[in-house]
Amino acid sequence: MKTIVMKFGGTSVATPEKIIEVAKRAIREKEQGKRVIIVVSAMGKTTDTLLGLAAAISQEPSKREMDMLLATGEQVTISLLAMAFKKLGYKALSFTGWQAGIATESVPRNARIEHIHTERLERVLEKGYFCVVAGFQGVDKMGNITTLGRGGSDTTAVALAAALNAEKCEIYTDVNGVYTADPRCVTGARKLQQISYDEMLELANLGAGVLHPRAVEFAKNNKVPLSVRASYSDEPGTIIQEVITVEKNLIVRGIAFESGVARVTVTYKKPFNGSLANIFNTLAENQIDVDIIVQSISDEFPPSVSFSISQDKLKETRSALTEVHEKMGFLSINIEENLAKVSIVGSGMVSNPGVAARMFDSLRGEEIPVKMVSTSEIKISVVVPQSNMEQAANALHKVYDLAEVQFSKEIVVSATD
Amino acid sequence: MKTIVMKFGGTSVATPEKIIEVAKRAIREKEQGKRVIIVVSAMGKTTDTLLGLAAAISQEPSKREMDMLLATGEQVTISLLAMAFKKLGYKALSFTGWQAGIATESVPRNARIEHIHTERLERVLEKGYFCVVAGFQGVDKMGNITTLGRGGSDTTAVALAAALNAEKCEIYTDVNGVYTADPRCVTGARKLQQISYDEMLELANLGAGVLHPRAVEFAKNNKVPLSVRASYSDEPGTIIQEVITVEKNLIVRGIAFESGVARVTVTYKKPFNGSLANIFNTLAENQIDVDIIVQSISDEFPPSVSFSISQDKLKETRSALTEVHEKMGFLSINIEENLAKVSIVGSGMVSNPGVAARMFDSLRGEEIPVKMVSTSEIKISVVVPQSNMEQAANALHKVYDLAEVQFSKEIVVSATD
Repeated sequence: MKTIVMKFGGTSVATPEKIIEVAKRAIREKEQGKRVIIVVSAMGKTTDTLLGLAAAISQEPSKREMDMLLATGEQVTISLLAMAFKKLGYKALSFTGWQAGIATESVPRNARIEHIHTERLERVLEKGYFCVVAGFQGVDKMGNITTLGRGGSDTTAVALAAALNAEKCEIYTDVNGVYTADPRCVTGARKLQQISYDEMLELANLGAGVLHPRAVEFAKNNKVPLSVRASYSDEPGTIIQEVITVEKNLIVRGIAFESGVARVTVTYKKPFNGSLANIFNTLAENQIDVDIIVQSISDEFPPSVSFSISQDKLKETRSALTEVHEKMGFLSINIEENLAKVSIVGSGMVSNPGVAARMFDSLRGEEIPVKMVSTSEIKISVVVPQSNMEQAANALHKVYDLAEVQFSKEIVVSATD
Repeated sequence: MKTIVMKFGGTSVATPEKIIEVAKRAIREKEQGKRVIIVVSAMGKTTDTLLGLAAAISQEPSKREMDMLLATGEQVTISLLAMAFKKLGYKALSFTGWQAGIATESVPRNARIEHIHTERLERVLEKGYFCVVAGFQGVDKMGNITTLGRGGSDTTAVALAAALNAEKCEIYTDVNGVYTADPRCVTGARKLQQISYDEMLELANLGAGVLHPRAVEFAKNNKVPLSVRASYSDEPGTIIQEVITVEKNLIVRGIAFESGVARVTVTYKKPFNGSLANIFNTLAENQIDVDIIVQSISDEFPPSVSFSISQDKLKETRSALTEVHEKMGFLSINIEENLAKVSIVGSGMVSNPGVAARMFDSLRGEEIPVKMVSTSEIKISVVVPQSNMEQAANALHKVYDLAEVQFSKEIVVSATD
């Protein structure tokens, strides 16, 4: 009998009524003769409420106790969902992370799953029960409750699918799939039928927000076919897997963009070894994440380094750098705000050197200044003024013909060839 | 080093501020060189909120899933209390029922503790940590979360005290001890310094409401000295133990009373064997608890049985009995409402046959009709009109001189001798 893992996020289980809908959705799968595991998150705003309670006690609460606290959120949802199955006439049992055998590292708030002891779930599935499993949580060797960090419920679902050798893992969410670009901003943005793990990883990392990168990585490493689909409708979503079988393997598959980017440029009095390490250590100590880094050293100008950060972190960055200004021999610190990052993602890019040129051509044609550039094997990101972000995304979406579905002539084309 | 178990109920931990107060209270004990375990209930109205969620899913939710749901309540409290200790500069770890090693029967919603595996708590206490344990919950052999039923947190505290060989178990609550009678209704009601387990058991069963009978029984069986005291003040509460050492072992130690009692009298056409069993089986099947039962069979009148029930259950009782009216050969069913039960409790009673006579004398002097009587070795209960309840309680409180503290001439007088 085939096994399927279905994951429903917080908005899909926000009320008792929605929980009953989730049960009905899962029952339709079971009626097709499948063994069904459902992974759920905490209901709606529960996590915020719990965080508020913790904040009222301590500004720096113990991470172990935060895990203890937050894990109650999913535990409430699983019990209610199991009740809903019974109410609808089906057998179901709920399992917390530790009951589901989800063994993790001893890293509170950000533990990685090390192993899943599936014996109990297997036994219960064999007897025809729905297994309802709390996402986002596990247990360490000492018996402490741990949580998996952001996107943790996605990871639980994928890890269970891998451990139980499931046919697929379906992530139900409030959008109906992965798009070539955000349809709220880009004309002609189109839902993708399929996308490769690597492409999805880049999109996820670039803030497309549908799936957590860690879950995608886990799926890729364990070859678990993932699908992203809407909890409110029956239409098929986007399938994420190693090999793209239907659509033509386009050079560029999607456009991602995010606003709220700032660029910081630090100029040194003179070049010296270790200057880069020093600056990024300082930022890391202050919990400031750096995205794109560009260094330029020439004979004509003083050496400088530019990097992009989230605009939210601008204040902390400014004060962290000002503090070490003298010590590190800075000549100046320049900050440019109100920027955005626009990226093109596609596995085909690696073997098509003209892709970048076409991107810059297009942006020049639109008279959009490019402030920074960063590339990987399957993506190119540019930093542009925020006011040009949507214009850039639309232009790129058009220049790579993303609005058109292009079916492959071959039946199977590997996306990573 | 001496060990102490402190238990705080839902109202004592209803807000983050109150949780911080609880931590401070426990720190004062630790500063006296003790190992401290704190057992807590769910915060304030949490349980009601969770019950509401379950009711929105199903009118008859699975008991296993109810345990899964309700157990989150205490888990929230323990994490917040552990955070509060750390905030105040102390080491603390929280433990759910299963983490604290509380092994129970597989009886959802009403499990009894079978064993406590104290290894982890012992280890952590040795290292100087506060152990914060979730009351009311445990785990069965299968690894299912169970709850202990009403008064479960008291039971957890007492069981831990027994298992860890604690010096005493302190139950912190919103009253400052056990009284000779409810001070809101009885003039001169006085806080008892000490009371025996058996007396407390009767008072608890009679609805004095301070401690759950199961917890008292557990304490008695394991000889754990209990104390009931206020969470809002430092004054000593009431000590519950086998042997009363300070106060004179009075014949009557306290007066308990509860309103909302109804009396049902069923008359049979003719006496037959098994009639009593039939009637009480019928009531039990309908989840109707019967308290006092009086049967009278004479040659002059048709045989009859009277029993008292909670007035809340009157409707169910009426319809359950009406249904079997013919089949069981009833002649009539009479119901008297608006009654109350008033009881005197005291270990000395058993060896003082005049106690009952004095009680009835006093009630006759007050012209209070006695509808039913029930006795045990250490208590006598009467059912009287509700309108006379407080009058009866005051009269009895006075006739047994309960307002006066009477110190023992001997140092030790066993309450059960």
